[in-house]
Amino acid sequence: MPKYAIGIDYGTLSGRALLADVATGEELAAAVLDYPHGVMDESLPNGKRLKPDWALQHPADYVAVLKETVPAVLRQSGVDPADVIGIGIDFTACTILPALSDGTPLCLLPEYTDEPHAYVKLWKHHAAQPYATKVNDLADKRGEKWLANYGGKVSSEWAIPKVWQTLDEAPEIYAKADRFIEAADWIVWQMTGIETRNACCAGYKAMWNKNTGFPPDDFFKELDPRLEHVIDEKFGREILPLGAKAGGLTAEMAALMGLMPGTAVAVGVIDAHIFVPAAGISREGEMLAIMGTSTCHMMMGREERQVKGICGVVADGIMPGLYGYEAGQGCVGDHFQWFIDNCLPAGYYEDAKAQGMNIHKYLRQKCEQKKPGESGLVALDWWNGNRSVLVDADLTGVLLGMTLATKPEDIYRALIEATAYGTRMIIDTFNEYGVPVNAFYAAGGISQKDPMTMQIYADVLNMPVKIAGSEQGGALGSAIFGAVAAGASKGGYDDVFEAARRMGKVKDTVYCPAAENAEIYDKLYAEYKVLHDYFGRGQNDVMKRLKKIRTCLASHREQNFE
Amino acid sequence: MPKYAIGIDYGTLSGRALLADVATGEELAAAVLDYPHGVMDESLPNGKRLKPDWALQHPADYVAVLKETVPAVLRQSGVDPADVIGIGIDFTACTILPALSDGTPLCLLPEYTDEPHAYVKLWKHHAAQPYATKVNDLADKRGEKWLANYGGKVSSEWAIPKVWQTLDEAPEIYAKADRFIEAADWIVWQMTGIETRNACCAGYKAMWNKNTGFPPDDFFKELDPRLEHVIDEKFGREILPLGAKAGGLTAEMAALMGLMPGTAVAVGVIDAHIFVPAAGISREGEMLAIMGTSTCHMMMGREERQVKGICGVVADGIMPGLYGYEAGQGCVGDHFQWFIDNCLPAGYYEDAKAQGMNIHKYLRQKCEQKKPGESGLVALDWWNGNRSVLVDADLTGVLLGMTLATKPEDIYRALIEATAYGTRMIIDTFNEYGVPVNAFYAAGGISQKDPMTMQIYADVLNMPVKIAGSEQGGALGSAIFGAVAAGASKGGYDDVFEAARRMGKVKDTVYCPAAENAEIYDKLYAEYKVLHDYFGRGQNDVMKRLKKIRTCLASHREQNFE
Repeated sequence: MPKYAIGIDYGTLSGRALLADVATGEELAAAVLDYPHGVMDESLPNGKRLKPDWALQHPADYVAVLKETVPAVLRQSGVDPADVIGIGIDFTACTILPALSDGTPLCLLPEYTDEPHAYVKLWKHHAAQPYATKVNDLADKRGEKWLANYGGKVSSEWAIPKVWQTLDEAPEIYAKADRFIEAADWIVWQMTGIETRNACCAGYKAMWNKNTGFPPDDFFKELDPRLEHVIDEKFGREILPLGAKAGGLTAEMAALMGLMPGTAVAVGVIDAHIFVPAAGISREGEMLAIMGTSTCHMMMGREERQVKGICGVVADGIMPGLYGYEAGQGCVGDHFQWFIDNCLPAGYYEDAKAQGMNIHKYLRQKCEQKKPGESGLVALDWWNGNRSVLVDADLTGVLLGMTLATKPEDIYRALIEATAYGTRMIIDTFNEYGVPVNAFYAAGGISQKDPMTMQIYADVLNMPVKIAGSEQGGALGSAIFGAVAAGASKGGYDDVFEAARRMGKVKDTVYCPAAENAEIYDKLYAEYKVLHDYFGRGQNDVMKRLKKIRTCLASHREQNFE
Repeated sequence: MPKYAIGIDYGTLSGRALLADVATGEELAAAVLDYPHGVMDESLPNGKRLKPDWALQHPADYVAVLKETVPAVLRQSGVDPADVIGIGIDFTACTILPALSDGTPLCLLPEYTDEPHAYVKLWKHHAAQPYATKVNDLADKRGEKWLANYGGKVSSEWAIPKVWQTLDEAPEIYAKADRFIEAADWIVWQMTGIETRNACCAGYKAMWNKNTGFPPDDFFKELDPRLEHVIDEKFGREILPLGAKAGGLTAEMAALMGLMPGTAVAVGVIDAHIFVPAAGISREGEMLAIMGTSTCHMMMGREERQVKGICGVVADGIMPGLYGYEAGQGCVGDHFQWFIDNCLPAGYYEDAKAQGMNIHKYLRQKCEQKKPGESGLVALDWWNGNRSVLVDADLTGVLLGMTLATKPEDIYRALIEATAYGTRMIIDTFNEYGVPVNAFYAAGGISQKDPMTMQIYADVLNMPVKIAGSEQGGALGSAIFGAVAAGASKGGYDDVFEAARRMGKVKDTVYCPAAENAEIYDKLYAEYKVLHDYFGRGQNDVMKRLKKIRTCLASHREQNFE
């Protein structure tokens, strides 16, 4: 009798359930629910305005996803709930909320519906930047060793800056909160009635390290005396590795979801890291790039290395028993879309229309006629700063080599190539710091829809590029962890690696580098590197100075308005 | 009784006559004739195909201009031909033709109608590049001092490369030609029956120097033994300063043009240099920028200085008694047009259309809302190489500072600013080499039609920008020289400077720098300079390497086709 697992992928705007065959990974049914409250970045449900840079969510939406999508996939597939052996979830992070000791979100208490700090702070809530800056300054000053695990920088998106902002701006919420908990762990808590915390969120977003734990209390005390015992008071020090079972479905939640009570629930995972098992990756040295508006690079290694300028290294952070490394590029699909929106001339639209062709396809056709190096262009892919290697949000884009004969498709292709050079720079950095990258996989929208870009990546990296086989990689990865949480005795797996090999998928298509292209791209990448270091490592800080001029102008303007 | 002068401006596509009042410069009538043969860059009149990079003209077209346009301006204005005291002409250069000793162009001889080399080689005939390269290499090797008068480089557009190409590829034409003569001098010869050569063409295009003459015969001999006596055999060493009278109209030409025989004809001038008196400039230190698809910078100085990287310094080359300096930017209006053609998104066209607005005006309106420095962008204006200061055709464009918030108007404005920085770099170079620039004038299409650009120039240069008052500056300048050729005794002028002051014009509008903008542009220009030197002076030759990759690819492709 075949067994099934359900994976639930909580994204920024919606939640998606996938029902998959545990033996093969075959995807039988999927269902999506857009969050009823969406992203609250302008006002609360009652209309109360939010300040700039805020981004909140409503926890009831997460439960609504369970209630709507799980019964839907059961219906669609006709699978007997008794044959569903496990559930896994993945979530955006750090997406964090204050809750009572029984898991009740503070925003559900009538007295706090009007208090922004009582809601879920979404990953892209950026209003905690001043707190992140103070964390970085102090960690730097104290020479905190854990800082190097994060490429030397804590982000404003992470847990401690968000919690500290709450303490500072809404001390009564901070006091009332028995727990601050990642939404990934909160929804698992809702399902199982058991509070757990997963190594992926704790490691990448809360500065936890398997060997050394959280930063010491006196570090938090020096940040703010009220934070001295924040970990013990609001978090908890027991962190479960990925692949662990958090508990079984409560009767109440089983009824809500149409499943059997006691169905195994896996600990949560971040929505990027979950792609790794879904692509069938089960060993160290195989990089997975999840390519969407931005790109996340996931890698596993046998040893803990402090690779300069990466986003994080966490033991058990991707799969248990290995060190999980994360790096990223801040602007990839966004970069291409910027070009389409701002640079693609009217004539091209007209011509595409006359040929009855989609504008993206039209542009790609023009690009494909070009050979590497033919445009004479090279770009630095820093339209949204540099997230890995240099870790510098103040860097900006460069395009070089234009002549009067330069065409829009030359520029478009140069932007694609630039993101490929950026990826190669990240791979080089891993190799340099002793974390060898032996294979390259791609997942995410671009990998599925844009063969030209994938071929350029293969040529630039001079490595074969394998493509993740599932178009719902997040949910499939979660289903894999669900099958592992159930265990072999229930028809699942005891070993995550085996589960990944069986249920994870790559496509048959592999993009292989063409030797003559790789040779030219070696030369172009050498030029990229020189420019990368010149503008990125302090030889010419023109970008920072230009930004400073802009900032001065903007603040001057504001003063004039006052 | 008022007196009149006629100026005739021979451009690339047409000739234009202007009849002006000698006392005031008032423009009474103008007429244009498009050259019947236009620019022959694909085939001869008989259909014979031309090779790439060729550009020829037909000398009969130049006579047709006299025959059509001069009677037209007389008719329009009702001026008595007896009151027309002088004629001046200006011409594109180096635009050169082979002729018999009586002035007959070789292409008019029946046996040569089929021979491309018998026709006029237009300034933009670029097929003589290999010959220019050899001239430069030898001059460099021999340490020829005159080379420094041209910023260290002879252009393929100049006389000797073109003549040498004729010798090499059509020796019978070279042998048959009694003279090689600039079209400027040839048309004067047609009008007066007297062969003269003007200092402007000889100095800027044929390596002639007032003090040292032409390069020595042994230089030409070393180039090619057959060229040893090229100057004496095909040119002539008597060079007339600007402002000189070449002769009087012959009876035959007077009849053709509807004027009186003996009417004074001035020696010819290049069509850029002629703008200087037309703008009323009559002293050293006042730079005139003629801003069209590209920009020419004209300056006069009291002394001969070898300013690094300028196009040329010629005694009497702009006005008699002063040293005329020329510099240039290869891509100005072309630069802006490139943006409009290749980068302006469809949405802007639609929006402009919806508002019933011309796209240029629409874009300008968006640009005008921006303040200096607000975009965070800086560009290097090298889309068509660098013509002055660096004199390097292999340099290419740079745009730096883009973010996802960068808008098309930001880029457009950055391109305009970049050309202004380029002009400031030229001014700085003149100042540095002891040729002070005290005032700045602009002429040409952009100066007349684009107030925003002119204000940006004023702010970037931190100098008032005065605008030439005539929209037909070329023809007005020629009329001024016509009045001088006639002399005071005939109701004209004996002194070019006085004629320029009386007949030349500036507009009332002066663009004055705004202090707060100038301050910001000082900072941005400092950034431009650092990038200019980094990419332009050998620190990072990435542009040349990218071009080399392109060239290799192209030649590889051609080989594959063979």
